[in-house]
Amino acid sequence: MGELVFVGLGLCDESDMSLRGVEVAREADRVFAEFYTSLMPGLSLQKLEKVVRKKIVPVSRRDMEEENGEEILKAAGKGKAVLLVPGDPLIATTHVDLRIRAERRGVKTSVVHGASIISAVIGLSGLQNYKFGRSVTIPFSEQGSPAETPYRVVEENRKLGLHTICFLDIRAEEKRYMTIKDGLQTMLALEKQKKKRVITTRTLAVGVARAGSTNSAIKADYVENLMNFEFGGPPHTLVFPGKLHFMEAEALVTLAKAPETIREAVK
Amino acid sequence: MGELVFVGLGLCDESDMSLRGVEVAREADRVFAEFYTSLMPGLSLQKLEKVVRKKIVPVSRRDMEEENGEEILKAAGKGKAVLLVPGDPLIATTHVDLRIRAERRGVKTSVVHGASIISAVIGLSGLQNYKFGRSVTIPFSEQGSPAETPYRVVEENRKLGLHTICFLDIRAEEKRYMTIKDGLQTMLALEKQKKKRVITTRTLAVGVARAGSTNSAIKADYVENLMNFEFGGPPHTLVFPGKLHFMEAEALVTLAKAPETIREAVK
Repeated sequence: MGELVFVGLGLCDESDMSLRGVEVAREADRVFAEFYTSLMPGLSLQKLEKVVRKKIVPVSRRDMEEENGEEILKAAGKGKAVLLVPGDPLIATTHVDLRIRAERRGVKTSVVHGASIISAVIGLSGLQNYKFGRSVTIPFSEQGSPAETPYRVVEENRKLGLHTICFLDIRAEEKRYMTIKDGLQTMLALEKQKKKRVITTRTLAVGVARAGSTNSAIKADYVENLMNFEFGGPPHTLVFPGKLHFMEAEALVTLAKAPETIREAVK
Repeated sequence: MGELVFVGLGLCDESDMSLRGVEVAREADRVFAEFYTSLMPGLSLQKLEKVVRKKIVPVSRRDMEEENGEEILKAAGKGKAVLLVPGDPLIATTHVDLRIRAERRGVKTSVVHGASIISAVIGLSGLQNYKFGRSVTIPFSEQGSPAETPYRVVEENRKLGLHTICFLDIRAEEKRYMTIKDGLQTMLALEKQKKKRVITTRTLAVGVARAGSTNSAIKADYVENLMNFEFGGPPHTLVFPGKLHFMEAEALVTLAKAPETIREAVK
């Protein structure tokens, strides 16, 4: 019977693949790759093909969501197919769906994990893993009124003293990537609309750009200052810290160049 | 000036290192490795030295916590030092502390990310990333009365409809690894003590063993059944789902062999 292996590509370029991932792809009968759920800033299909020593078929959102990954499933029915996916492969729901469909057809599935933006951002921030509440994505607002969910999630987490990772919307096929500044503006617009005091210009936030690349950037500051910080190219991620432990404040000051005044908040 | 690079080893064995991680370690003047914060079931120092083509100095909990990683910092002050760390390297607080100390001495630090148990367990469970609340560790109880934090975290998350990852205590230096059964028993003991109805024998839970290895195991079932499931060797992780979406129930049934009856809970 056939086989489908989901291989994580990690965060930045082809050298983030694990030795096991490279080996599995080299042995496969067919190799597919999906690039629309995330942006890996240093990656190209050509470089990936060189590492994998094989022709790679790129799959689009349409292939995955309208055609239900039928081409991949057919290849996996006949032999060993590999799907290369940015980050850790089963974080995007669309790949979990594909895995379920494959298993239901009797195709054996497995996963070679890769570095994920989730643990990368937690680690780079220096904030403690156990203090992150649920995470959320700030989407591009289509009709001018931003979705309220991210605002509510940050509010809920902060009430519990917890930190929030806000992933920023990516429309890779349109080359549209939300910036940290866009994300902050969306949150401030909601604040104004709701007349609450959850995220003000004096709220501490942390911006992370190109996590996992050799030119990643991180900066912690009050929203009003962070809006004007030059983070460079995408992808960007935003963190709203909750209640800071003494050591977390030290980490933000030393590793994310937060203003010294944030130490006062933990006294 | 010197340099210290934290390189993530991923989840199972030496082949989980990324191509970039291997390259960085091969170029280093000194290579250290820490194996006490996690267990990588297929790893040995010898296999790792073969991949890295260098002598690797293992560091113990004592080196890191009592000596504050002084030997690593000294090596990083003089040249390029690499610290190999299971998973994604800055998830354990002890490595964030070391990074802060290095930066304060003027040592340049950077990170090569690796696959983390956090995203691996989320992905393998098929549950949606955005619906995980804060995570928690169930510790070995020293004086017979288990710590209450994990119980409270699961309770808090479930009130909000959120899933909880419970990491299970690891004392790698004593070769003690908490099993899924131990974790469930600890939670049931707390339930009895508190006279609440948060985690009963009929609560749905998901056990994941050896995530990221080629013989990983996953099983979703009611606590009373999961207690008797044979997961095999460590490391183990436990997930308590919150409110299930229809697609999450499908994922648990198909990918984690949950009983069909769990579908009724989402109707």
